[in-house]
Amino acid sequence: MAATKKTGTKKKTDPKPAASQKPAPLPSHRVEVRLAGSGGQGLILAGLVLAEACGLYDGREVAMVQSYGPEARGGASKAEVIVSEEPIDYPLASRVDILLALTQEAADTYGWDLAPDAWILVDEDLVGHPPTTRAVKLPFTAVARDKLKKPMVANVVALGAIAELTGLVSKRALEKALMARVPKGTEQLNKKALSTGARLAREYQERGTTPPPPPSAADL
Amino acid sequence: MAATKKTGTKKKTDPKPAASQKPAPLPSHRVEVRLAGSGGQGLILAGLVLAEACGLYDGREVAMVQSYGPEARGGASKAEVIVSEEPIDYPLASRVDILLALTQEAADTYGWDLAPDAWILVDEDLVGHPPTTRAVKLPFTAVARDKLKKPMVANVVALGAIAELTGLVSKRALEKALMARVPKGTEQLNKKALSTGARLAREYQERGTTPPPPPSAADL
Repeated sequence: MAATKKTGTKKKTDPKPAASQKPAPLPSHRVEVRLAGSGGQGLILAGLVLAEACGLYDGREVAMVQSYGPEARGGASKAEVIVSEEPIDYPLASRVDILLALTQEAADTYGWDLAPDAWILVDEDLVGHPPTTRAVKLPFTAVARDKLKKPMVANVVALGAIAELTGLVSKRALEKALMARVPKGTEQLNKKALSTGARLAREYQERGTTPPPPPSAADL
Repeated sequence: MAATKKTGTKKKTDPKPAASQKPAPLPSHRVEVRLAGSGGQGLILAGLVLAEACGLYDGREVAMVQSYGPEARGGASKAEVIVSEEPIDYPLASRVDILLALTQEAADTYGWDLAPDAWILVDEDLVGHPPTTRAVKLPFTAVARDKLKKPMVANVVALGAIAELTGLVSKRALEKALMARVPKGTEQLNKKALSTGARLAREYQERGTTPPPPPSAADL
């Protein structure tokens, strides 16, 4: 218990107090993020990186849940990250604010309990039929495969797009958390994947698309 | 969609169906595991490996939760893994069956909501005062540092000891999950860390120590 107090002290003497680099305010008090796809698409790692970026570097409270079962190998899998300005008592998503779906199966399985104004990002080529027509379709996997020559970084491309579009996490925090989790020797590739995702998102915004409109009857 | 279906097919034609290598029965219907220490001790990775071993390779239902907050950097951190024979509706630990504590602070902070017959594993050198006198004290960090020359694999040494002592996860599953998550080039080191942990546990058992006795008034 004494140790807990010590940490409190350490925090105060941190040479880079959170206040000086405070990230943009969260879009709402509590933001629920779900990263969904199939096993092997690296969504657990993406969730870890996002959680650590928000929790360790942006100074938010974060909880992450993922589950595995006999059906998980190859089937739809997901990681959920809750980000809040206050301690989180319930770490499960119940009204998802940001959904990333990298496969059609994931979009079908995990695309139903969304907030009316949720951000829905889907892989343009792998999700032919997104949960709603206002989903943001971006070619995460194609860009990772064709431009970066590493299909496995589609998860990081998607993280870059999420950060750019939603403002959930600061770019600095995301890059720091990413560098701490990726294998040695892949730092440059992963940084490039992150900035490529951000560029995809900016190009999407420049095409004149505005943030998700309020829900219409057609969405419900 | 094609990819998802293909993977589904692959699962059915898997040359080693789960049934033929069914792991030992769980000690109880639902087992709650908490891995606690300080940030940087690799407990999130250890949790992932344990969760994936139980869920993807041993065919159990598994949920994992971890949380981060402004206090997490350097402070007490934890990952919780719930393993069950049936789908898990509540993924949080409420009565921990297996606690690993790698620091005194973690033992103090996370050592209070244990099952009466919980396994309590603590680092012999870093936890001077375990939550109860019947804790299993093993030199995870010292062995990783002195014998394996890599202090950072103390987490894997501990996983090996947990598997050996508690029977929660098959060794085959644990090794497969570990190999899938560790950086390339460190496979042999990590396999050795796992077997070293198992040996520490066997030596503990050979010293004539029996499984945790039923709780006595002194523990409560």
